[in-house]
Amino acid sequence: MNLCEDLRVGVVGAGQMGADHIQRLTHRISGARVTAVIEPDPARADAAVTAAPGARAYPRLEDALDAGAVDAVLIATPGRFHEPVLLPAIAAGVPVLCEKPLAEDAAAALRIVEAEQRSGAQRVQVGFMRRFDAEYAGLRELIGSKELGELLMLRCIHRNPSVLDYYTQDMLIADSVVHELDVVPWLAGSPIRTIEVRHGRRNTLAPAHLEEPILVLIELENGVLADVEMNVSVRFGYQVATEGVFEQGIARIGQPAGMQIWEDGSARIGEHRSFTTRFAPAYDAQVQAWVDAARAGGIAGPSAWDGYRVALASEAGVRALHTRGPVEVDLPETPAFYAERPLLFPSRPRQRTL
Amino acid sequence: MNLCEDLRVGVVGAGQMGADHIQRLTHRISGARVTAVIEPDPARADAAVTAAPGARAYPRLEDALDAGAVDAVLIATPGRFHEPVLLPAIAAGVPVLCEKPLAEDAAAALRIVEAEQRSGAQRVQVGFMRRFDAEYAGLRELIGSKELGELLMLRCIHRNPSVLDYYTQDMLIADSVVHELDVVPWLAGSPIRTIEVRHGRRNTLAPAHLEEPILVLIELENGVLADVEMNVSVRFGYQVATEGVFEQGIARIGQPAGMQIWEDGSARIGEHRSFTTRFAPAYDAQVQAWVDAARAGGIAGPSAWDGYRVALASEAGVRALHTRGPVEVDLPETPAFYAERPLLFPSRPRQRTL
Amino acid sequence: MNLCEDLRVGVVGAGQMGADHIQRLTHRISGARVTAVIEPDPARADAAVTAAPGARAYPRLEDALDAGAVDAVLIATPGRFHEPVLLPAIAAGVPVLCEKPLAEDAAAALRIVEAEQRSGAQRVQVGFMRRFDAEYAGLRELIGSKELGELLMLRCIHRNPSVLDYYTQDMLIADSVVHELDVVPWLAGSPIRTIEVRHGRRNTLAPAHLEEPILVLIELENGVLADVEMNVSVRFGYQVATEGVFEQGIARIGQPAGMQIWEDGSARIGEHRSFTTRFAPAYDAQVQAWVDAARAGGIAGPSAWDGYRVALASEAGVRALHTRGPVEVDLPETPAFYAERPLLFPSRPRQRTL
Amino acid sequence: MNLCEDLRVGVVGAGQMGADHIQRLTHRISGARVTAVIEPDPARADAAVTAAPGARAYPRLEDALDAGAVDAVLIATPGRFHEPVLLPAIAAGVPVLCEKPLAEDAAAALRIVEAEQRSGAQRVQVGFMRRFDAEYAGLRELIGSKELGELLMLRCIHRNPSVLDYYTQDMLIADSVVHELDVVPWLAGSPIRTIEVRHGRRNTLAPAHLEEPILVLIELENGVLADVEMNVSVRFGYQVATEGVFEQGIARIGQPAGMQIWEDGSARIGEHRSFTTRFAPAYDAQVQAWVDAARAGGIAGPSAWDGYRVALASEAGVRALHTRGPVEVDLPETPAFYAERPLLFPSRPRQRTL
Repeated sequence: MNLCEDLRVGVVGAGQMGADHIQRLTHRISGARVTAVIEPDPARADAAVTAAPGARAYPRLEDALDAGAVDAVLIATPGRFHEPVLLPAIAAGVPVLCEKPLAEDAAAALRIVEAEQRSGAQRVQVGFMRRFDAEYAGLRELIGSKELGELLMLRCIHRNPSVLDYYTQDMLIADSVVHELDVVPWLAGSPIRTIEVRHGRRNTLAPAHLEEPILVLIELENGVLADVEMNVSVRFGYQVATEGVFEQGIARIGQPAGMQIWEDGSARIGEHRSFTTRFAPAYDAQVQAWVDAARAGGIAGPSAWDGYRVALASEAGVRALHTRGPVEVDLPETPAFYAERPLLFPSRPRQRTL
Repeated sequence: MNLCEDLRVGVVGAGQMGADHIQRLTHRISGARVTAVIEPDPARADAAVTAAPGARAYPRLEDALDAGAVDAVLIATPGRFHEPVLLPAIAAGVPVLCEKPLAEDAAAALRIVEAEQRSGAQRVQVGFMRRFDAEYAGLRELIGSKELGELLMLRCIHRNPSVLDYYTQDMLIADSVVHELDVVPWLAGSPIRTIEVRHGRRNTLAPAHLEEPILVLIELENGVLADVEMNVSVRFGYQVATEGVFEQGIARIGQPAGMQIWEDGSARIGEHRSFTTRFAPAYDAQVQAWVDAARAGGIAGPSAWDGYRVALASEAGVRALHTRGPVEVDLPETPAFYAERPLLFPSRPRQRTL
Repeated sequence: MNLCEDLRVGVVGAGQMGADHIQRLTHRISGARVTAVIEPDPARADAAVTAAPGARAYPRLEDALDAGAVDAVLIATPGRFHEPVLLPAIAAGVPVLCEKPLAEDAAAALRIVEAEQRSGAQRVQVGFMRRFDAEYAGLRELIGSKELGELLMLRCIHRNPSVLDYYTQDMLIADSVVHELDVVPWLAGSPIRTIEVRHGRRNTLAPAHLEEPILVLIELENGVLADVEMNVSVRFGYQVATEGVFEQGIARIGQPAGMQIWEDGSARIGEHRSFTTRFAPAYDAQVQAWVDAARAGGIAGPSAWDGYRVALASEAGVRALHTRGPVEVDLPETPAFYAERPLLFPSRPRQRTL
Repeated sequence: MNLCEDLRVGVVGAGQMGADHIQRLTHRISGARVTAVIEPDPARADAAVTAAPGARAYPRLEDALDAGAVDAVLIATPGRFHEPVLLPAIAAGVPVLCEKPLAEDAAAALRIVEAEQRSGAQRVQVGFMRRFDAEYAGLRELIGSKELGELLMLRCIHRNPSVLDYYTQDMLIADSVVHELDVVPWLAGSPIRTIEVRHGRRNTLAPAHLEEPILVLIELENGVLADVEMNVSVRFGYQVATEGVFEQGIARIGQPAGMQIWEDGSARIGEHRSFTTRFAPAYDAQVQAWVDAARAGGIAGPSAWDGYRVALASEAGVRALHTRGPVEVDLPETPAFYAERPLLFPSRPRQRTL
């Protein structure tokens, strides 16, 4: 390998998420650089190209591919724009890191996995970054080790300070709980069987059209039950935490850490206010792992099939939002093409010895 | 008042719970002493009388009452023996502290509240000691203050290391969740509307006849939703914790405290292994509050009506344990006799400034 | 024993401390009641008598003793008034609980231990209440157990929010560090050899005549070194904490506990603002232990000899405050009369399992 | 800039530290690659070259410089080998990141700063990586902000599980406390005035020739006093923590974080066992900041002058180890060449909101 051949990445979408990935690829990731930006908004496109020396703007991904300007693609547009970008990328045979969700709906996700199967190789990784968070990875390791016996329940917290006006009731599931729809089965090693939604007392600080917080009950094939508190207007900060309930013990992740300050009658620790800081190391680890795998021709994280399964569960979840009682999730058999293989974990050392 | 006239307490039942209360009344409570012990087992009765200088054993409570030996009664027998002791105590007009549950079932509880109403005065306090725990009291105060806005959800943990063989599936509700059936409405200031039970993966360490852990969903009239993880075989220790989810923040109680030890690659804090230590200060505060109130002719904690409401909710909960979906709790109107009055709180100073 | 014969306690001094003890003896302690109050300020005396039904005011302790009104004495006046009260109490042969310090200076303390030795029996207990704090007791137990190997260092924190104007520079040692002068040797099982004082940058919020915070270095006979941060103007609250450094591990006590609140970007726990809440359970445990021991004719805590040793160390500490380098503490041999005996520990159950 | 022109780094020393840096530069750092390895041990040199595709082994740094193979140098040998490598690197005008300490002693450090001054530009950065730890940076920011008033004291902990046999008594200062000799003045914004060493009880688990733990008292020009517990045989793990004592509050860094596990009667969090995990993110941030600065021709961390000052303080500290009382540190005026400039901070976002 010629060392100068960094992975040349085309970034599709240069909004908040895309700009963040461009910054990451340019300043913190080894072995990659941004060479193409695809973004319809000219101001954003300009800013992105300025932020990534050596990058050029292209009107469409196909143009960058045709120009031979990119080795790999990172898609950071909203979900409904994914399919039209994924299909040509798959056709071109380049590795892709696609922000969640994989596609607008399960039907689109199915078209994508079908296209990928026809292409002959897995090259699409979906950006469920929680799998690259050190504590989530540690919890999964603990579950697998059976040190505390079998996992019995997962008690999940997913709290946001606020949402913008365009955020709809269904997005509680399709945009937010979607993370748990990926990570809960991944942690527990079993697919989702049913989803049910219950409501807490309505938060009067939520936008008028939202009925939340909700409590989502996710039952897995292996009997594990997860309850997810989904809260998008809770003001105090951003918090994602989970408690694994085992036969002989408990494991809790996602607790505040860092400097402690004693002031004015209390001792306090800063909490996050946004996913951008909470999961910053996970995003870095995810993109580095993807770059390393892409240079070797593969993926190192959730597959398109994982994305499809989440899409199916998400559709069931949206139905559950408008129904009483559990809604079944009908998951097809995993094709041999997507047979489980050991996922690569983040390469950074674990910080603690537990 | 003649100072020598300590409240003379007859303790009914000298098993583990009764012996603990005798110890408490004799060595830690101001203004009371044990003068009578009613306990069929002669060895236990002997031990109890020895532990409480000046106490005498009586075959039946009525004998102690007839002998003019007691000013008040503390009932520490299993629930199915409460009614036959409560009725003569009520008839005699003496103050009673009755361990939870108030009675074997809702019908018996109803007979008790009817008897008390006929007696003309509230003198029965039920031993839901969590209300006397400093952190529960602090959480209730915080809810009432609306400092964090309205309460929206309560996320509860109730974990025991193990249970004895006589513990039945229905006791998950009737003996264990019964605490939450009292304390959740007390915290949230609203009665229970429905109860639903969901199951986690079965703990193989549980006795063969138990299907647990369970997740109990308690919906209140004011819309607050509580989910209670009820776990009775989790080995690691005893843990009762709650997270109050408010419009603008979160409050968590029941976390481990005390000496921290760094040893062998980890930093650890001791967790409880039994309710006897977890709630020791609450039991002390409860009994002291009751003694003070009893000397003044009243009660200072959950009333018989509270006990009746819990009995109704508990019966619904047991039905929910064997049903799918939420079971409604049909609560009668509170009689004027039991109209809400401000409860007396534990007199010990709050330890923290929050 | 006649049950009505509660220990009749005469309380000397009805200021903040005395009033608190009267409240405690009247409402929270088993087996004792206040029958006499000795307090020159008429308003305080009146308030005290009103707070303790059955109590009477006496001009001098001797009057109460002569009237046969008291079985025991609790002294809660400032230290310079202790000797004139202790001597008649010792002469009368009644048990005494004397707030710290034992006496105004080491010479007075020596006169007291000499008087007590002449009296033939130990009946004076000094109010170093930290020994009755559950965490201090746990740390001492851990040291004794050698579970983490030998104790090597103690790193101590003693922080007050502020002090009143009468508080002098020497009181940093004589009034504040005096607690560590008792508890450090008690924890480590070895007497003090030298004391040195170093200064931090001066806190501009301290009264103009105070040079603080200081760092006090206490070296014990067994080689253990303790450094005590003494801080009396730190505003944020009241904090007393210690870290025991062992050969194989660390133990930390005095950390904040209780309800955790997530609000406005941080997670916080209330800290104390005063010793009255920080050590409330320790004061209760101390007084209950003393009452129990006094009824049996003895003491259950720091002896007059302990108080004398602290007075000697305190005088060395005051010299060290005005000197460079370590000042030696010259401790006489412990007389056989005061030979170490196993101290009674608080009877309340340990709350945690560590 | 041609994007392919990654910074070509020559790594001197491929032992544990050097190998770690090669791994870092190759797999986690953006904009740099290892092109030369200088390591006398052939096996280590081979392993290093294999780990860094495109790198070549050179017998001496001068050979790599002469071959035009490197743009910058990272020195990871023991301190006594630094001077002979630094001088040619400075002469060649290439940027250098030099592991701490800068040189074997203050005299050598002085020769280095003189050589650098003659070279006309600051190109030497010293590897005091704590400055790149997010919590240290946060504490320094808090001190600078004066939000809690002036800093008064720093209470420091530096604990290692064990040391190898070659570790000498003087290395307690020269190899271990040396970190605090850099970071304490950096935090407090003031140079060191005196150093004193006190001893705790000797740890019997320490190698026979070591007398430790020690307590090091560091007094700064601005009056701030730091006490550093230096402990190298404490077995339980690796812990570096600091408490900043301010006029109105306290800030504590270095506490355990991450997954919490409840098991067997306690709740625990993993603690570090080595600096390699404790400071992994700091090493990454340090090297990335240096690479970015080196590509722009400068440094982004402690300068050679900082390294010289630490060498002077370290020599005073070693004297203090063998003396009673404080030893003065005689710091020369900072030459204009090294006049303070705002240091670049790590570019990663702060994780918490405090």
